[in-house]
Amino acid sequence: MDTTLWQQLIGEFVGTMILVLLGDGVVAGSVLNKTKGFNTGWLMITLGWGLAVTIAVYSSGFLSPAHLNPAVTLGMAIAGEIAWSSVLPYIGAQILGGIAGAVIVWIHYMPHWKATDDSETILSVFSTGPAIKSPINNVISEAIGTAMLVFGLLAFTQGQFTDGLNPIVVGLLIVAIGLSLGGTTGYAINPARDLGPRIAHQILPIANKGDSDWGYAWVPIAGPFIGAALAALLYQVLPLG
Amino acid sequence: MDTTLWQQLIGEFVGTMILVLLGDGVVAGSVLNKTKGFNTGWLMITLGWGLAVTIAVYSSGFLSPAHLNPAVTLGMAIAGEIAWSSVLPYIGAQILGGIAGAVIVWIHYMPHWKATDDSETILSVFSTGPAIKSPINNVISEAIGTAMLVFGLLAFTQGQFTDGLNPIVVGLLIVAIGLSLGGTTGYAINPARDLGPRIAHQILPIANKGDSDWGYAWVPIAGPFIGAALAALLYQVLPLG
Amino acid sequence: MDTTLWQQLIGEFVGTMILVLLGDGVVAGSVLNKTKGFNTGWLMITLGWGLAVTIAVYSSGFLSPAHLNPAVTLGMAIAGEIAWSSVLPYIGAQILGGIAGAVIVWIHYMPHWKATDDSETILSVFSTGPAIKSPINNVISEAIGTAMLVFGLLAFTQGQFTDGLNPIVVGLLIVAIGLSLGGTTGYAINPARDLGPRIAHQILPIANKGDSDWGYAWVPIAGPFIGAALAALLYQVLPLG
Amino acid sequence: MDTTLWQQLIGEFVGTMILVLLGDGVVAGSVLNKTKGFNTGWLMITLGWGLAVTIAVYSSGFLSPAHLNPAVTLGMAIAGEIAWSSVLPYIGAQILGGIAGAVIVWIHYMPHWKATDDSETILSVFSTGPAIKSPINNVISEAIGTAMLVFGLLAFTQGQFTDGLNPIVVGLLIVAIGLSLGGTTGYAINPARDLGPRIAHQILPIANKGDSDWGYAWVPIAGPFIGAALAALLYQVLPLG
Repeated sequence: MDTTLWQQLIGEFVGTMILVLLGDGVVAGSVLNKTKGFNTGWLMITLGWGLAVTIAVYSSGFLSPAHLNPAVTLGMAIAGEIAWSSVLPYIGAQILGGIAGAVIVWIHYMPHWKATDDSETILSVFSTGPAIKSPINNVISEAIGTAMLVFGLLAFTQGQFTDGLNPIVVGLLIVAIGLSLGGTTGYAINPARDLGPRIAHQILPIANKGDSDWGYAWVPIAGPFIGAALAALLYQVLPLG
Repeated sequence: MDTTLWQQLIGEFVGTMILVLLGDGVVAGSVLNKTKGFNTGWLMITLGWGLAVTIAVYSSGFLSPAHLNPAVTLGMAIAGEIAWSSVLPYIGAQILGGIAGAVIVWIHYMPHWKATDDSETILSVFSTGPAIKSPINNVISEAIGTAMLVFGLLAFTQGQFTDGLNPIVVGLLIVAIGLSLGGTTGYAINPARDLGPRIAHQILPIANKGDSDWGYAWVPIAGPFIGAALAALLYQVLPLG
Repeated sequence: MDTTLWQQLIGEFVGTMILVLLGDGVVAGSVLNKTKGFNTGWLMITLGWGLAVTIAVYSSGFLSPAHLNPAVTLGMAIAGEIAWSSVLPYIGAQILGGIAGAVIVWIHYMPHWKATDDSETILSVFSTGPAIKSPINNVISEAIGTAMLVFGLLAFTQGQFTDGLNPIVVGLLIVAIGLSLGGTTGYAINPARDLGPRIAHQILPIANKGDSDWGYAWVPIAGPFIGAALAALLYQVLPLG
Repeated sequence: MDTTLWQQLIGEFVGTMILVLLGDGVVAGSVLNKTKGFNTGWLMITLGWGLAVTIAVYSSGFLSPAHLNPAVTLGMAIAGEIAWSSVLPYIGAQILGGIAGAVIVWIHYMPHWKATDDSETILSVFSTGPAIKSPINNVISEAIGTAMLVFGLLAFTQGQFTDGLNPIVVGLLIVAIGLSLGGTTGYAINPARDLGPRIAHQILPIANKGDSDWGYAWVPIAGPFIGAALAALLYQVLPLG
């Protein structure tokens, strides 16, 4: 990047903020009571998350490489695309961005929290939860989804996913993962996307909120890191054939 | 632009006319009784509005910068992309275009107004209304949506959204805003898109029409202007890091 | 074109055949009994028709300008994009292609005609019909939709819609017209797409078929020609500003 | 290709594995009990399969020509795009990839097999079955769908479908075939996509599984090969006009 580390961190913060604003936003728009898209369902949610990634990458790519995801940052470091010294600062900026995005979602949908009784529905706007609770299987699911993400990013954008139309291709990859692999755990495939909003959910005075389900919080962290590492290693070994 | 101001104003008029024709048209096609897409719902409406913007930008970009939106025009002036002296003429052409587009929607769906009893449904074809009435929150929602729009336009097309495939990227941005942030107020995010058709609704002898809800009309004007101004300022400050 | 007139006519024939195969095919896939997509609805049909046009243009663009539509051919002649002497041969090839495409749809869905009782449903696979019968309004609707099509083709592809990604942009234009303007008459916006399959419907021994509704057949011919002519004239006048 | 045959075979294996992982995955995500996308339906399945092809082509195109389909390999050999000596090794790698992808789908959705009672639903995740059983008609349907695929690949990518945005265009072609021609047999249009997962279904200890319906297995092999051969021949004859 031609930008300074400080600018890159601003880029990762702003990009992850927009990612979570639009991503958690589309869940809110489908599950919160009285919204105009109420109950539109899974196709809306998966298309919305794909577009969230596309728009977030476009919106931050002039400042940073737009990983917007600690697992992607880890994978890119393993693949030699960024310096290891950037990894922890990037992850910090991404988690802060995730918190900020969730706060804006809370503000944006303000009158709708009161209109929604179910506290699990409210948590689902912020963070992921499994369709069937089974920690080992849930970690494996998150690892498979994230491996697909990181392998794809390396294979078809060579880690340069902010150029030209690449953000659209990256968004399509997210939609594909959501439709095909998201039905089990809600495809966090991104620790900052899950942890940041969960922190916001814990802190904010959201009407009708309940427990933040911290018992599950390690799954969408461990799974993505494992999957990203495996995919980055696989990508480097494959062409040796 | 290589075109004269007069040509640019024709472009803004024609583009906003097509924007409202296709945008209000997709609402009509989903909510008016006996249409073939009756009750298809939110995904149809958000995809339709995104395509409306894409097609409108493509259709007017050979004449004007295709803002088609007074809030975007304000944002572009703040960001230094167009002269301040063009702002008011542009806005005038956009509002006239919005009226003209709404008139064509009325003609196009002529037999369907009589078939639709509910006057609120008929108004919803023309102008936006909130899911939960709460003026301050509704203004904030419109400001957040429009800030996302203007920040995106500046960040990833540098204000040149008529080139090559940019109109498609802009359309995807509109779909993203609709899916993720539109569920609260119906995302006017454009004063001309709301005011123009509201004027048409007031004037035209539409079957089964009721009140034009002028009490709400200031919200989709104030919110978008506030959001656009904030986004343009933010975009200029950010890279200073 | 670098191809001979004879090759161009083969291109128009093959392209319109594929257009109707995929376009009438998506209607069949949504309305015929026991199909896997049964009752998926309007979003499926409009996306399917848009893709039908994209694929058909890509599939014939190496031979012809891929009008695949007599109204587009008329508009392009008025705009000076093709010789007037090609107009009648093109239209002939397009109508023959429309018949051929409808025959393949009949073969492809063979076991499903017997499974579908309603003869109006069967006709709707082949040709369009109005949501509310009202000949003058129906002609106006078809004219508005086709004017949008021809103005768009001229404004943003300058009549060269087979190059690069242009077929995708053209497909998006079709989806936009379908979603926003198609709900009234089913947007034939193409005389060959309606007349060709209607002839096939008349001739073929389709199980459970009824009347071919020839009384309506003039509407999706007259409306598109009127709209195309007006749009081509408007496009030439506009930039004079 | 600049890669060795061995690398190409790895590419075909990995690509087909990803194709089936995402393709069978989207069916699982729509039909298995308790998934988050349960019962979203045909639009989800057809979009998911289209994206599966796009992502799989992008993910393997740096190693192989990304046929990922024995029928496409046959068509490309007939059209002179690859050497006949590569055909059998390619097909072997594709079938092995199909088996591997199905195994990962089984692992990914592990808790959901037990939650799903119906054994036909479980088989439908792995392999295709006809909407109305009628072997001759089903073979014809598969042949027509595959002919459209191979003709499209040759006509608009000239067999080079891994370049630039071509994988997206190829994915759109798959969506078009799914929406318009898939409703009869579930559009295998790819012997490896059907046979590989059927073998996996036979071997794996899947909860609640039933018969692998080997009586139908020849249809999605014969139909695609016939259609691919006809399309490749047609493509070569056409421009002679």
